[in-house]
Amino acid sequence: MPEPSTLIIDACQYCNWSEEILGQLRAGGVDAIHVTVCYHEDFRETVENLIDWNRYFETYASLIMPGRTAADIDAAKASGRTAVFFGLQNCSAIEDDIGLVEILHTLGVRFMQITYNNQSLLGSGCYEPVDAGISRMGKEVIAEMNRVGLVIDLSHSGERTCLESIDISARPVSITHANPSSWHKVARNKSDEVLKALAARGGMLGFSLYPLHLAGGSACTLQSFTAMVAETATKIGVDHIGFGSDLCQGQPDSVVEWMRNGRWTKGGANIGLGKAVFPPQPSWFRDNRDYPLIRDGLAGRGFTTAEVDKIMGRNWYRFFAESFGPTGKH
Amino acid sequence: MPEPSTLIIDACQYCNWSEEILGQLRAGGVDAIHVTVCYHEDFRETVENLIDWNRYFETYASLIMPGRTAADIDAAKASGRTAVFFGLQNCSAIEDDIGLVEILHTLGVRFMQITYNNQSLLGSGCYEPVDAGISRMGKEVIAEMNRVGLVIDLSHSGERTCLESIDISARPVSITHANPSSWHKVARNKSDEVLKALAARGGMLGFSLYPLHLAGGSACTLQSFTAMVAETATKIGVDHIGFGSDLCQGQPDSVVEWMRNGRWTKGGANIGLGKAVFPPQPSWFRDNRDYPLIRDGLAGRGFTTAEVDKIMGRNWYRFFAESFGPTGKH
Repeated sequence: MPEPSTLIIDACQYCNWSEEILGQLRAGGVDAIHVTVCYHEDFRETVENLIDWNRYFETYASLIMPGRTAADIDAAKASGRTAVFFGLQNCSAIEDDIGLVEILHTLGVRFMQITYNNQSLLGSGCYEPVDAGISRMGKEVIAEMNRVGLVIDLSHSGERTCLESIDISARPVSITHANPSSWHKVARNKSDEVLKALAARGGMLGFSLYPLHLAGGSACTLQSFTAMVAETATKIGVDHIGFGSDLCQGQPDSVVEWMRNGRWTKGGANIGLGKAVFPPQPSWFRDNRDYPLIRDGLAGRGFTTAEVDKIMGRNWYRFFAESFGPTGKH
Repeated sequence: MPEPSTLIIDACQYCNWSEEILGQLRAGGVDAIHVTVCYHEDFRETVENLIDWNRYFETYASLIMPGRTAADIDAAKASGRTAVFFGLQNCSAIEDDIGLVEILHTLGVRFMQITYNNQSLLGSGCYEPVDAGISRMGKEVIAEMNRVGLVIDLSHSGERTCLESIDISARPVSITHANPSSWHKVARNKSDEVLKALAARGGMLGFSLYPLHLAGGSACTLQSFTAMVAETATKIGVDHIGFGSDLCQGQPDSVVEWMRNGRWTKGGANIGLGKAVFPPQPSWFRDNRDYPLIRDGLAGRGFTTAEVDKIMGRNWYRFFAESFGPTGKH
């Protein structure tokens, strides 16, 4: 177990939640998670996912609590629980209605991706052949997200959409779950140009532990992973990195298929990644119980204890504290 | 103007909101209002009404602020504004989904009627020929409303539905806008049996100033009205009464027609009240600017200053303070 003073925050998970999996968050000492409540859902369907979470909060009140502000993480830690923050991996939940930005923020949503894999009403996804950048509605929605404190997440967006979002946003933005493409070149990972621009504007990168984003895939070693973390720290600064594991524990493979195809195609979402299955996790990060292994791995990379703590959770904590309130009120 | 220490709370309004009308709230010294955000709307349509209110809060930030807790009324008073609390005059907004009770509470909704005029999924309205009382879903929803702190409002419900709701609810309930039928016998006003049961369980009655609920209609005198208030205080106690004017200022008559017919009939909502028009307000309560006249009228009825203050707002304040949080947390 990490020392009690270490905060652990995971900025992207989409597990098939159960008492067992929520218990593993506690076993791993994870103080806060950002969970996905929308991939392709419209507003009403997203609300139904929030209702599912309300039931989890009632049923598993000794394990989890709703996370709305950074201070809730302290409350969760003090009571031996994990604070759960909501996020959308797609703007489908706001439909064509800018008023839903504030409504979803009031319902506890704290992150929204400008796009999932495809072109959206706001921008372009990383699998589109052409990325036209931020749309007219995209500019309006970014300003509204800035106003209310809904954080822009660019994890699945294309290069131009990423760069324009970082530039247009008046507040720091996030890439909650991706890795540098200089380490592993796939569409979902990010160029040095994007990562440097992100950090220069105060943004945060969450390193993904999803095998398709790892050099070597499921066989990626902890050594390779932590070397990449150290290199990224050198490149963009130790204050702008954390974790967003993209852990999808306990989900059937039909969920990957749904993530890729949604309702926009009858099955043609060929993104060059082969069959739609969840690959096995690397041996050193099977699930949330293994966060202490990552912590130990980082400690062996020459980081100071304070730096390790930043990467494990303190950076995300600071970012949450600065980002979730209305403009001028943080 | 009432003395600054007097709180004025109006527990039901549905005006055609504008800078002029919101300014009249300030002119009348009204510190808090409960406004209707649903008559026949489904969930998604109700959310659109909340979005309209978010725009009002942005546009008229010097006049109004969102009301969520009783303490917000103090904040509003201290900053010279009116706190606006949301309520539903129908359970249509929760559709057939008990999970929407907590979602709507999170969005700031603090009152929900068990029924509007008709039979609903939960109970029966005051214009139905037969009132079967609280349904199976009604029992479940009342328990959930009690749990999260969404107040039951029985203003438009039938006699049996009123009595059963008061009995089933573990927390005090409200009739936000109606008068005693002993004073003016119409379907929308309430029997002494209902009013006494309401007060015996700690509930609150808001006196309506809508002409169809007044003895003499638009010609009702302030003397007749305040005599009725005094008689009701004797009957159910001075701690259980306040105002809920049902003021619908600036609305076109088509809105009355829509209130009555909704989408459930092609125009056959004959409720024996004649043409669907808004009748003229009584001369002594044209709009919110006239609350001081009512206060003076009450003062002449033998109430002490403390009792007048209770009726003008302190009773609702206490009820708000006890009712809007989760069970056991008020």
